[in-house]
Amino acid sequence: MSLNLKTHTEHFTNPLYLESGRILEPYDIIYETYGRLNDEKSNVIVVCHALTGSHHAAGVYEGESKSGWWDGLIGSGKALDTDKYFIICSNVIGSCFGSTGPISTRHPYHEEYRYKFPVVSIKDMIKAQRILFDRLEIYRVEAIIGGSMGGMQALQFAIHYPNFAKKIIALATTHATQPWAIAFNKVAQEAILKDPDFKKGYYDPKVLQKQGLSGMAVGRMAGHISFLSHKSMQEKFGREYKRTDGLYELFGKFQVESYLEYNGYNFTKWFDPLAYLYITKAINIYDLSRGFDSLEEALSRINADLHLISFTNDLLFKNFEMKEIADTLKSINKKNYTYRDIESDYGHDAFLVELEKFENHIKDILNG
Amino acid sequence: MSLNLKTHTEHFTNPLYLESGRILEPYDIIYETYGRLNDEKSNVIVVCHALTGSHHAAGVYEGESKSGWWDGLIGSGKALDTDKYFIICSNVIGSCFGSTGPISTRHPYHEEYRYKFPVVSIKDMIKAQRILFDRLEIYRVEAIIGGSMGGMQALQFAIHYPNFAKKIIALATTHATQPWAIAFNKVAQEAILKDPDFKKGYYDPKVLQKQGLSGMAVGRMAGHISFLSHKSMQEKFGREYKRTDGLYELFGKFQVESYLEYNGYNFTKWFDPLAYLYITKAINIYDLSRGFDSLEEALSRINADLHLISFTNDLLFKNFEMKEIADTLKSINKKNYTYRDIESDYGHDAFLVELEKFENHIKDILNG
Repeated sequence: MSLNLKTHTEHFTNPLYLESGRILEPYDIIYETYGRLNDEKSNVIVVCHALTGSHHAAGVYEGESKSGWWDGLIGSGKALDTDKYFIICSNVIGSCFGSTGPISTRHPYHEEYRYKFPVVSIKDMIKAQRILFDRLEIYRVEAIIGGSMGGMQALQFAIHYPNFAKKIIALATTHATQPWAIAFNKVAQEAILKDPDFKKGYYDPKVLQKQGLSGMAVGRMAGHISFLSHKSMQEKFGREYKRTDGLYELFGKFQVESYLEYNGYNFTKWFDPLAYLYITKAINIYDLSRGFDSLEEALSRINADLHLISFTNDLLFKNFEMKEIADTLKSINKKNYTYRDIESDYGHDAFLVELEKFENHIKDILNG
Repeated sequence: MSLNLKTHTEHFTNPLYLESGRILEPYDIIYETYGRLNDEKSNVIVVCHALTGSHHAAGVYEGESKSGWWDGLIGSGKALDTDKYFIICSNVIGSCFGSTGPISTRHPYHEEYRYKFPVVSIKDMIKAQRILFDRLEIYRVEAIIGGSMGGMQALQFAIHYPNFAKKIIALATTHATQPWAIAFNKVAQEAILKDPDFKKGYYDPKVLQKQGLSGMAVGRMAGHISFLSHKSMQEKFGREYKRTDGLYELFGKFQVESYLEYNGYNFTKWFDPLAYLYITKAINIYDLSRGFDSLEEALSRINADLHLISFTNDLLFKNFEMKEIADTLKSINKKNYTYRDIESDYGHDAFLVELEKFENHIKDILNG
C-alpha cells in the first residue's frame, strides 16, 4: 500500500488562550497525514516533532530527494504502519513551516509578528493540536509519540488530556528542561541576537534564507555538540584532519570542525531565527509540574499507558531524567507504564538515526 | 613566611624554532615566582597555566582584590609550600598577559603580529619555558604541575625533556584533544571570527577591552558548559528563574542564563580574541604521540615520576582519557606512575575550585 501522504492547512479564527494569559488569533496549523483514517476514526496515531522538525515526518515531496524526518519509522509495514494506522503530524505553533509563528503575518496589520508574537509553551502547542483534532472530529487516538521536544508534547498530552490517547510514547526527553539544555539554548539565542544581520529581529526572511545568519550557525554548532555523544564523535571524527599538511595553519580544519560548519551554515538556509528563539524559549520553560504542586501530582493525572524510552549516552536529555519520571510513577503506584533505557552510542540523535534499536519495541507497544 | 611574589619579564633575541617550521624572534616571557630559590637551585616547582590563565598564579597584586588562579594551592604551608619551594609560573607564548603573542608588537615593523603570528603548539610553549629556565640557570626541577592545558604542558615536558623534572603532576587533561573539546573551541572561534567588531583581526585592542566582543562572549558561554558538570549545574542553578513573573517574557532569564551572560561578557574585558584563537588552536592540535609512532613510544620516553589526576564528571577532558594514559603506561611496563580519579561534582572546574579534594595527594607526591 502507498504512504498516502497528504498535506493540509487548517485556519482557526477562534482565539487560542495561551498559558501566559495572552491570546493568539487567528492562527493556522499545517499538518501532514499518512495512511487512511478508518470509518470509526479509531486508528489515529499522533506524531510530535522536535525543535527544528516539521509536519513532514515521512515520504518524499515531488521534485525533492530528502524524505521526512522519521521516514524510517512511518510507512507500510514499518513500526508506525500506514497499512493499519492513520498518522497525523502537525507543525507546532511558533515554528516556521506553515503553522503560525513569529514570522507569520499578524492580522490585520499586514506585517509579521516578530517580537509581537506571544511566548508559547509546549502546553500551548498541544492545546492547538487538540483543537485541530476537534476540527477533524478526532476525539480519541491510539497513540501519541515523539522524541525530544516531541516527547515533551506527548507527555503534556498525557497530563492535560488524560483521556485523549490510549498510549503515550516519549523518547529522549525529560520532565523539565535542565540547566545544561537551557545553557546550550542560551548560546544559540545570544549568538542570534548579537548578529547584526539579525537586525534586532527586523531582518528580511528571504534575504536571510539566501545569505544565512552566521549567529544562528554558531548557535546550531553548539547544539550539535549536545546531539552527539563522546563515543559517536570519536568514531565519526576522531582527530581526523581535512588536510594533514595544513595542521599548522590557524584556520586548518579537523573533520569535526567541517561537520559543525556544514551543519551550522546549512541550517540557516532552512530555519528561521525568530522561530528558533521562540521554540527554544518554549523548551526552556517546559516543566511538567508547572501548575501542579509537584511532579507526582502532575503524573498522577495520566490515564494512558505511558512508555518511556531514553538513550544511554544522550548528553542533552540525560537518561536519569527519564528514569526520574519512571521512579515518580512507581512512587505513586502507577502500574501502566514501562521505562526502557536503550544502549546507544549515538547520543541524543539516536531517536532519529538508530531506529533499529527501538522500532520493535514500538511495534510491541502498539500491538498490545 | 611571606609569599615573596615577584614578577619579571625576560627578553630573548635568539630565534625560537617552532614545531611548524616557523621562527619566533625576538620574544618575551613574563613569569612570576613565589618563595625563595635555594643556593643549590634544587627546590624549583614549575606551575603551568590553562587556556585563559596567566603567570599570576598566587597572591594579590597591590591595589587589586582578586588573587592568582591557584592561590589556594600555592603559599606558606600550602600544597605547593613556598616555605620550602621556589615556584615559577610563566605566561605561555601566544597569550596576552605579557609573553609574546598575536597582539604583541612585531619587530621591526612597529605593528602587532595579528595573523602574522605563527601557530604555536603546546610543545612550543614548553620549549620557550625551557629556554627561560636555562636563562635562569635552572637545569633540573623538583616538579612540574598543571591542570587542563597546564597538564598538557606538564606531559609534554615529561616526554620532550625527560630528565628536566623529577616529578610530573598532570590534572584534568588528556593525551590528545578529543573531538568534543575541538567542537567547543570551534563554536568560540567561529563566533569570534564572524563578529564584525572583531574586524577580521584588525580591531583596536583597547577599544575591545572596553566594549567587549559579543562573539567571544558567546564562545565563552559554550566553553562554560564544558567546564561544569550536570550535577554542578543542577545544584548551582537548577531551574531557578531570575524574576518568576517574567517566565513568559521572551528574554526572561534562568539563573544559568545570567551566569553564562555574566561570565561570557566579563571575559571579553580581560582576554584578547586573537590570543583565544591561537591558544585554542594549540589545544586542538595537541597530541602527545605526534612525531612518534604511537602513544606508547611517546610515553616510553618519560623518566620522571608521573602522577595523573582526573575528575569523575569532567565533561571537557573525560576521565577515561587520563585512564588511557595510565593503561598505556601499564602496557609498556612503566612502574613510576600513579593514576587517581577523584570523585567530584564540579566537572572540569574541579582542578581550580575543589582543591581540598587533591591538595593532600599533591603534598604526598612532593614529600615522597
